[in-house]
Amino acid sequence: MSEVYANRRSRLREHFNAAGTAAALVTRPANVRYLAAAAPRGAVLLIGGGEDVLVCAGPPGDRPHEGQPDEHLRLHVLPAPGGGDAAVTAAGFAAGQGADSLAVEEHHLTVTRHRAIASAAPGLRLIDLGGAVEQLRVVKDEEEISCLRIGAEIADQALGELLESILVGRTERHLALELERRLVDHGADGPAFPTSVATGPHAGRRGHRPTDRRVEEGDFLSVCLGATYRGYRCEIGRTFVIGTSPADWQIELYDLVFAAQRAGREFLAPGAAYRDVDRAARQVLDSAGYAEALPPLTGHGVGLEIDEDPQLAPAAMGKLDACVPVTVEPGVHLPGRGGVRIDDTLVVRPEADGGPELLTITTKELLAL
Amino acid sequence: MSEVYANRRSRLREHFNAAGTAAALVTRPANVRYLAAAAPRGAVLLIGGGEDVLVCAGPPGDRPHEGQPDEHLRLHVLPAPGGGDAAVTAAGFAAGQGADSLAVEEHHLTVTRHRAIASAAPGLRLIDLGGAVEQLRVVKDEEEISCLRIGAEIADQALGELLESILVGRTERHLALELERRLVDHGADGPAFPTSVATGPHAGRRGHRPTDRRVEEGDFLSVCLGATYRGYRCEIGRTFVIGTSPADWQIELYDLVFAAQRAGREFLAPGAAYRDVDRAARQVLDSAGYAEALPPLTGHGVGLEIDEDPQLAPAAMGKLDACVPVTVEPGVHLPGRGGVRIDDTLVVRPEADGGPELLTITTKELLAL
Repeated sequence: MSEVYANRRSRLREHFNAAGTAAALVTRPANVRYLAAAAPRGAVLLIGGGEDVLVCAGPPGDRPHEGQPDEHLRLHVLPAPGGGDAAVTAAGFAAGQGADSLAVEEHHLTVTRHRAIASAAPGLRLIDLGGAVEQLRVVKDEEEISCLRIGAEIADQALGELLESILVGRTERHLALELERRLVDHGADGPAFPTSVATGPHAGRRGHRPTDRRVEEGDFLSVCLGATYRGYRCEIGRTFVIGTSPADWQIELYDLVFAAQRAGREFLAPGAAYRDVDRAARQVLDSAGYAEALPPLTGHGVGLEIDEDPQLAPAAMGKLDACVPVTVEPGVHLPGRGGVRIDDTLVVRPEADGGPELLTITTKELLAL
Repeated sequence: MSEVYANRRSRLREHFNAAGTAAALVTRPANVRYLAAAAPRGAVLLIGGGEDVLVCAGPPGDRPHEGQPDEHLRLHVLPAPGGGDAAVTAAGFAAGQGADSLAVEEHHLTVTRHRAIASAAPGLRLIDLGGAVEQLRVVKDEEEISCLRIGAEIADQALGELLESILVGRTERHLALELERRLVDHGADGPAFPTSVATGPHAGRRGHRPTDRRVEEGDFLSVCLGATYRGYRCEIGRTFVIGTSPADWQIELYDLVFAAQRAGREFLAPGAAYRDVDRAARQVLDSAGYAEALPPLTGHGVGLEIDEDPQLAPAAMGKLDACVPVTVEPGVHLPGRGGVRIDDTLVVRPEADGGPELLTITTKELLAL
């Protein structure tokens, strides 16, 4: 088990060595956690020619929920809390190890911090590591998928319990807070992202932040939530109708989004191009005249962050691999009227293994609550 | 009222014009909000020689809770959602307005994004705006202080209600979630930061994240929470004892931290050096032998972000002004035993106006619950 992290670091080392660099400094917290098993606040990871060093701003055991760093790493704790940037210290170590160049995450470091690193180790040529760690993170191992699966079960449970309660008259904010409490009740570290509850004219909006609007008879209600379990984040979204009989336009819109979401799901397979998965879902909505109402993407990777590579979007380049978890989440929002979103987390699997594995199993029938 | 934002932009313009720059690009969300009244996701603000432009990634009215941008601004919405970086578009506008230099927030922009801006407007010399907007934000107007005051009332209410409920046997996580629900019940936009509930050996730790530990008889219980109200964030922290009779060491430690916190509060005045306020609180704890157990700072500014300038810390440079809201929050944490934190939000006022204004008015007596 503890070889996992050393193996990940070896793969990264091969990558930057092949590019002619002796050492890399990883600063993006999710990347540090992926390679070091834990990312104490302010910690950075130096992967060098010699020992790999996790440089921490404080004692790493100080926040037990963040887990323990991989035991194969050398730990270096900065002397005083708040006493400086661990990245600057780590760059000094790289120079001390004899490195002449250091790959850094230019998409994460600010200009100011990059300059401080350069000043602290003037002999070191800083080059761009790019998204190398993010690319390693795309394909998950079964341990990671297992965390996502448990997170999805938790989210399904929380959502299922909400559906059994009285909804009319309650505000979006309260429903969202109740869902987050239930996630924690069922064992989540916490919500994977701010829970979205959208009623009436808000329904169907991606990332809608809950307001004080109350659930009313006849509303669409769309809910999007996720659990974090051992650091891994999943996502589920469903849309319901409040009251006994959905209106015709609601049934039509729901059926359409459901067809689009199914088309996207059915397209998930090793080797499928990201953009083709997106198109499979998108063209169902496009051809029904909703081209304007569509979001920029219809799905994305999940893992240690809720929004990871790949993006399932019209201009995305690349193809799916097995063991890549993604969301499929088309939606239509009609300003002033509301809309529908349906969102699942699935793991890409070869057809021989039964095709895509659905992690979020709450029904996608149109329920009238 | 709507002149407020134009006046803030004028002050910033004077600042960067005096430094020889014709235009500035503000990207840090809290800074955009401060100058434009709203910061739709992905929006940036160009303050130029001609018109000021808020460049948005999507329609700014799309998220009503974020408020409406100042009507004096020109709005430019990027054509496609997800279709690019508003900062790159804004840099192009600056070049089009005839600017030859553009001040940017190097402490906020990543190296990658800075490079994209430079590439999009090659004729433009990019210079560093530094923390100019953060400095403008330090002294608050009465409208801003009023938002902080309401937020503090909400936090006091939420905390007061919790104290009336049964605590023994409940977990840190559940207490934190309940506090956050109560904040929203009383009208907060949401919590100002993740609510911290720390029991027993966790008590007194700054920024402790709630765990599944349950409250037990004899525990210290320390709670730190805050409300966001119209974007403004305040903070209150209190420590209690669970059970009828605190132990002697608990009473002694509490009295000591309380004395330190009072010393810090009493030092707040226009003209007081940041480091002297810190020292007033810190030396009480130092001289009792707790130098090792102390946090790197004993207070900080609050406003649109929960952790703003100034820092009340040993190495901080500068002096307080009137109308600067700060926290005073010394604490001692003894590993394995627990500890005490006491945290208030106050506004610096001249003695002629009655001295520092305490916003968080929950009692600081040692309550046994």
